[in-house]
Amino acid sequence: MTEADAVHLRFAVNVRPKDGILDPQGRAVEGSLGHLGIDGVSSVRVGRRVELTVTAADEDAARVVVERLAAELLSNPLIESYDIEALGGSSSLVGEPA
Amino acid sequence: MTEADAVHLRFAVNVRPKDGILDPQGRAVEGSLGHLGIDGVSSVRVGRRVELTVTAADEDAARVVVERLAAELLSNPLIESYDIEALGGSSSLVGEPA
Repeated sequence: MTEADAVHLRFAVNVRPKDGILDPQGRAVEGSLGHLGIDGVSSVRVGRRVELTVTAADEDAARVVVERLAAELLSNPLIESYDIEALGGSSSLVGEPA
Repeated sequence: MTEADAVHLRFAVNVRPKDGILDPQGRAVEGSLGHLGIDGVSSVRVGRRVELTVTAADEDAARVVVERLAAELLSNPLIESYDIEALGGSSSLVGEPA
């Protein structure tokens, strides 16, 4: 792949504690709601959101990279689940005419 | 509002470091890519994702609650920006016929 062929895509990886896994940050948020006078909020889960740019030959290749990164580095599969989101801000370089 | 009128909506608040703000977690992820043999990944930003359920009279009222929570508790406006996402898993109770 040459630089001119590459696509640059922006993704987000959303990581959250699995159901049933203790989430002390979520409990802390719930515990603070009363002080703010906010009610009606429940089931708070606090996770991470990692946004990144992938440079690859095409979108499929970019997704493979993000999937691997999410599974091997960004989440702990024992206690966390994740999903991958393509962000609108993605862009692609204009390649040579085919 | 009676319980039967209430809607239960699920939202996510995505919080990220503003452009130009140091992001040591993002640098740590970038520093780990080489060890995993992953390349083509850049501009990594690590933020938080908070998912929560709001019980309110209607969707507009629920959004007001989430907006306030995001601005006052979940983000630090000096160094972070946020956006609010309505999640597909939202549900509403069936109210009395109008």
